[in-house]
Amino acid sequence: KMLRRVLFTVLFMGALPSLAEASQGHISVVLLGATGDLAKKYLWQGLFQLYMDQVSSGHSFTFHGAALTALEPGQRLMFDVLKKLACPPDESPNRCAVLKDQFLKLSQYHQLKTAENYTALNREIETLLRREGLKEAGRVFYFSVPPFAYTEIARHINSSCRPPPGAWLRVVLEKPFGHDLESAQQLAAELSSFFKEEEMYRVDHYLGKRAVAHILPFRDQNRQFLDPIWNRHHVERVEVVLKETVDAKGRTSFYEQYGVIRDVLQNHLTEALMFLIMELPANVSRAEEVLQCKLQAFQSLWGLEKNSAVLGQYQAYTSQVQEELQKAHDYISTTPTFAGVLIHSGSLRWEGVPFLLTSGKALDERVGYVRVLFRNQAYCTQKETLRVAGHSQCKAKQIIFYIGHGALNTPAVLVSRSLFRPVMPEGSWREAVGQSDLHIFGQPLSDYYVYRPVKERDAYSALISNIYHGRKDFFITTENLLASWAFWTPLLNSVSHQPLRLYPGGVENQHLLDFEMVSGEVAFTLAEPAELLKPSRLMPSDYRTIQSKFRHSPLVSAWSEDLISQLASDIEKTASRTVARSGQFHLAVSGGSSPVVLFQRLARHHYAFPWKHTHIWLVDERCVPLTDTESNFFSLHNHLLQSVRVPYFNIHPMPVHLNQRLCVEEDRGTELYAKEIVALVANASFDLVLLGVGTDGHTASLFPQSENGLEGAQAVVLTESPVKPHQRMSLSLPLINKAREVFVLVLGKGKHDITTLISRVGHQPRKWPISGVSPSSGQLVWYVDYEALLG
Amino acid sequence: KMLRRVLFTVLFMGALPSLAEASQGHISVVLLGATGDLAKKYLWQGLFQLYMDQVSSGHSFTFHGAALTALEPGQRLMFDVLKKLACPPDESPNRCAVLKDQFLKLSQYHQLKTAENYTALNREIETLLRREGLKEAGRVFYFSVPPFAYTEIARHINSSCRPPPGAWLRVVLEKPFGHDLESAQQLAAELSSFFKEEEMYRVDHYLGKRAVAHILPFRDQNRQFLDPIWNRHHVERVEVVLKETVDAKGRTSFYEQYGVIRDVLQNHLTEALMFLIMELPANVSRAEEVLQCKLQAFQSLWGLEKNSAVLGQYQAYTSQVQEELQKAHDYISTTPTFAGVLIHSGSLRWEGVPFLLTSGKALDERVGYVRVLFRNQAYCTQKETLRVAGHSQCKAKQIIFYIGHGALNTPAVLVSRSLFRPVMPEGSWREAVGQSDLHIFGQPLSDYYVYRPVKERDAYSALISNIYHGRKDFFITTENLLASWAFWTPLLNSVSHQPLRLYPGGVENQHLLDFEMVSGEVAFTLAEPAELLKPSRLMPSDYRTIQSKFRHSPLVSAWSEDLISQLASDIEKTASRTVARSGQFHLAVSGGSSPVVLFQRLARHHYAFPWKHTHIWLVDERCVPLTDTESNFFSLHNHLLQSVRVPYFNIHPMPVHLNQRLCVEEDRGTELYAKEIVALVANASFDLVLLGVGTDGHTASLFPQSENGLEGAQAVVLTESPVKPHQRMSLSLPLINKAREVFVLVLGKGKHDITTLISRVGHQPRKWPISGVSPSSGQLVWYVDYEALLG
Repeated sequence: KMLRRVLFTVLFMGALPSLAEASQGHISVVLLGATGDLAKKYLWQGLFQLYMDQVSSGHSFTFHGAALTALEPGQRLMFDVLKKLACPPDESPNRCAVLKDQFLKLSQYHQLKTAENYTALNREIETLLRREGLKEAGRVFYFSVPPFAYTEIARHINSSCRPPPGAWLRVVLEKPFGHDLESAQQLAAELSSFFKEEEMYRVDHYLGKRAVAHILPFRDQNRQFLDPIWNRHHVERVEVVLKETVDAKGRTSFYEQYGVIRDVLQNHLTEALMFLIMELPANVSRAEEVLQCKLQAFQSLWGLEKNSAVLGQYQAYTSQVQEELQKAHDYISTTPTFAGVLIHSGSLRWEGVPFLLTSGKALDERVGYVRVLFRNQAYCTQKETLRVAGHSQCKAKQIIFYIGHGALNTPAVLVSRSLFRPVMPEGSWREAVGQSDLHIFGQPLSDYYVYRPVKERDAYSALISNIYHGRKDFFITTENLLASWAFWTPLLNSVSHQPLRLYPGGVENQHLLDFEMVSGEVAFTLAEPAELLKPSRLMPSDYRTIQSKFRHSPLVSAWSEDLISQLASDIEKTASRTVARSGQFHLAVSGGSSPVVLFQRLARHHYAFPWKHTHIWLVDERCVPLTDTESNFFSLHNHLLQSVRVPYFNIHPMPVHLNQRLCVEEDRGTELYAKEIVALVANASFDLVLLGVGTDGHTASLFPQSENGLEGAQAVVLTESPVKPHQRMSLSLPLINKAREVFVLVLGKGKHDITTLISRVGHQPRKWPISGVSPSSGQLVWYVDYEALLG
Repeated sequence: KMLRRVLFTVLFMGALPSLAEASQGHISVVLLGATGDLAKKYLWQGLFQLYMDQVSSGHSFTFHGAALTALEPGQRLMFDVLKKLACPPDESPNRCAVLKDQFLKLSQYHQLKTAENYTALNREIETLLRREGLKEAGRVFYFSVPPFAYTEIARHINSSCRPPPGAWLRVVLEKPFGHDLESAQQLAAELSSFFKEEEMYRVDHYLGKRAVAHILPFRDQNRQFLDPIWNRHHVERVEVVLKETVDAKGRTSFYEQYGVIRDVLQNHLTEALMFLIMELPANVSRAEEVLQCKLQAFQSLWGLEKNSAVLGQYQAYTSQVQEELQKAHDYISTTPTFAGVLIHSGSLRWEGVPFLLTSGKALDERVGYVRVLFRNQAYCTQKETLRVAGHSQCKAKQIIFYIGHGALNTPAVLVSRSLFRPVMPEGSWREAVGQSDLHIFGQPLSDYYVYRPVKERDAYSALISNIYHGRKDFFITTENLLASWAFWTPLLNSVSHQPLRLYPGGVENQHLLDFEMVSGEVAFTLAEPAELLKPSRLMPSDYRTIQSKFRHSPLVSAWSEDLISQLASDIEKTASRTVARSGQFHLAVSGGSSPVVLFQRLARHHYAFPWKHTHIWLVDERCVPLTDTESNFFSLHNHLLQSVRVPYFNIHPMPVHLNQRLCVEEDRGTELYAKEIVALVANASFDLVLLGVGTDGHTASLFPQSENGLEGAQAVVLTESPVKPHQRMSLSLPLINKAREVFVLVLGKGKHDITTLISRVGHQPRKWPISGVSPSSGQLVWYVDYEALLG
């Protein structure tokens, strides 16, 4: 057809050195969704840029636009776009005009709807190549289509459009890549049945933004300066921010399903953060090394909780949704359009450094940046007004990867002069001068070394170039994607019922969206201003704690997160009171999964806990070495002890591993532990015992019908569990009942049946050991979450 | 004589209600050194102010100036001073003139030189009181004399001038109170043989400065705001600063003996810091409670080391000293005139917060302040230029106790408006307004709530009033004084050979005196500028590390502090290298006092140490419970383990306390430990063993002629020490010699003889066990300080 004629002519005429010398082979680029918004705005321009850059590379190219539209109108639509392609300012107009003409000739429209369409496309490519005697280098399929179409297209490409052996296939995918962890896993699984991992290029166009793409190279090229300071001892905070002035008007059908966290934080801001905090691989341009370091960085992050985020919604949003999506007038959207999130890493490098991610629509300015603020470690003896500008060590020290817009209105890398003069690649970044009246983050621009890209280039051009070069480090692998969703999904779940702060939008937001960190959580700085709340707006109130009775003892109930935070506070209160009274606090804790979140909460949010005076005992233990991941103590150590300062002498693991063997009677571990308790705990009466309940009604490691521990004088006993590892050591019921306080924690739907059952039965410890918990002179409190209580 | 006539006339005339109604009794104030500089400048004025304030209090007064000068000239000198007494601006001129006249009449000069002079003074006071029928309330003796005269005067007062029972004695002492801990202890011991503790009022006139005196009341009155933020989670740093523009010219005879640390930091700045960081007593006006909290705060401070301070001297100082003290032209003073000191507390409240104390002469401005800078915990979403002034949570948060001078030129208390509006006592402090163009610590004055004293009053007037009221909380008790000297003396010793940075003085100092914190130490920010060093100035260089051989093995030698820091670095290097190679690092450490400083250094300055992968073993242990203060493990825990994050499983105390008894053979502790070593350490070859040497040549707990451990197959042995506690557990020499590296640390003069001896002897482990240390395939390095090496 036309294309072939053009190509033939071109080759015959010998006018294009690139095709005449196509020794590297031919590349076919297929753009699916060729007439869509993204294609119009960025992708065709990016492909044209690729052509201009690579016309002499030894590769020949053809460009295949495709859509569902029939051939004629599709062709017309597509060429309308192509005719408007711009020449970059740094290109000579003559050369550009010639190349644009060639580019148009090498481009062709295809309707891709049926299986036959795909077969036909494949046949055309093959025929062309055969006819022109060209070797095939590879094929790019760019999916600029809605995600629901992915599977179908992928199936067709896989079955009909794969290049012959020796040539590569690259499929380029645009977000959204799912809605949460589950849907992302599902989509990933489907795609992986059609494509190999190395064939997939998932676009996060932020990785094509100049400043973001330069984070890793910058860290690499400035290792000598950064090595000593790129850690918690020097970094005060990290901010990753994308503020927009626009709102979601016209896009609510998309936005209402996603919201700001899914739209911006889960992908763009998270990726930028990862570049900043990941360990630096030896070779930053090797995609596999970068990926491994990034995945490790994800692993190091603390789980997000409800109070890790503050959320807002601009006031006009709900009415825009009502209008655009034809919702009723009492419809209230709970989609956040603003989020501020506090992230912490547990790594040695970053522990304690707050990472703040912020994004929102309808804010006061459009700007994006990644900012590292360093602590001021200096004392400047000379008074401020007498200090030489720009050179003082007391000036704030920052490194800013300025993504764009804002006061600078260009991508840039800024480094405080009080830090160091950075090494920057000369070909691509140049030092900027002038504009000293501008202030950036509280300082005149003259306080920074400022670098701007030598060439302006939009993110998509950069990404398309990276696809061509097979630079997978600029794309999101499946593992990377799922790690990110695994990180964000718990927050998305726990905030789905959270109230949103309404904000007027624009500069009128004033301080309404300022937030601050308190004990590892965030909260808006200003109290909720009543006048901003529409009276009709219902605030979910079901997250609050209720107090009642259970088995004649006090019951505290809430959604699990709130329950845990209530329990942690109550434990701290008990601890402080007890230490004030007796100088020490003896706490016995159970194993199992429920306490893990409690341990984490205590470790991360209870700075004032009197750990120094606390003794930690085990309620029960599995007969495995303490360093075994199945050990209760191991879990306790991992989630609590390694993060707080309990003196070594105050930590009392159960002696299940004496003489290099596990729970052997003759080793008398139970006696040893009982003696230790008697020696240290007044009257062998623990200040607080924390218990759980099994679905069979067991508590501690006291199982139904247990021969030991349900009664009798023994304080510590060996028992048998119906599940592996069978051998256990446990405090006995009589010892537990001597405690001053006993808290029983019950979490999750899986515990609903047993919760219901034990709410009704009497004192029957042989059948249900938990029913035997009844402190003789102490207090019993039940902490049962809504799921366990109500099913 | 004249005074009595005056007093008699006064009483007879009934002109003075205060004396007519002296129902509270009579107070005699004796000012020793009545014609000296301090008396002229502040003390007489303070006494006059006391008289004006208390004339109607019900007490009658007489004022006795005293000096060594004979009666006639002394009288003349003294009354020359008295005639110049000023009336305070807030006093009516008429009343003041009358009171001044009375004050002069109630004042008298005495020559106090011989024992008879004191007896005569006492007789005069007694006679007067008897004659006038006055009850004696008390006597104040104000020592405004050089400290060498203290003992003699104290003896006379004690033997001849004590008031009768029922009346109090208050002796007021002016600094210096010694030159270091030893001299201060000596002086305190002497004074305490003459006076009871409650009779002594040691003046630190900074405690009379309005802003300093208000620190505790401020903390008390603002508990509600400060309680949540007065800790390491919120405070970024504390600065206590006293800068002077004057130099020491004319005072070098004093200054050359003391220097800036003794002159200003040990007393004024330390006291101000203590008010800030001490736990708040329930009642801040009870001297005993305040003292106890202050002493605890001293206890919590980390010891100062050489690199805790940066020191300087203004360039003209040495020539001033040469001139004023008639020194030779090659005389070089090593007295610092500038100091910046970094102090850390190990308390739960303050751990990690830097306290910076700075003072110097010949600086750019005269100013004094105590500044608490809080961390910025907020993220402000609105851009800076759009934030409402004064209200943003992103503005710096500070509390400043402004002692005086500087830009404000008045004592003041400043609290950032972004923090809270403080509670201030209305009668004594009032809110200041205006002057918003002024900038204080980087912020316009309008960003602060600013309070100034209602009445100006100099520090000495305040202190004299406190002496009158018996407010001992404004004075330095013996315990307080000695705690402060105990804190500062090690630094004074270790910096006595330090090079000083020379600075030109005044605004030309520029950034020369700026300093910064690195790993818990401080250093000048700018490298030493060569042109500022006089070529003739010799820098002490004997503090550097030397490397040589000892017993055919490498020897590292230095002054002990440098040696310890070299050893700590070498251990970290070995650890990092070993972890990189094998994933873990097995370190065995000895007990005793020498390693304590090493442990502290590792804990405080080696953030990058791979603790997570380090196993800690004991070389030897005393047979006492682990929680006994004599236990090697207890010391290790106290000085190292409680501050770093070694996993619980990696800590291996020796099992000296099995079955609730100590080192009983049948409990097989040695076998148990040996098994543990074999199970975890490859080939039972420790990566590093750290040893010491006893004066008898013992090492580990292997003593001369020991039956066990010097040879044979046993890896761990029980041994007998010649000193208590006799029973020990120890690694054996053969096991030690399997190590990959062995470092032997020898510190102090007491080890000189044994060091000399073992440098000469061969392999004779039965006589000198240390001589048997000879790793079979590992490396041995000796770390011996100069005192041990050179005596």
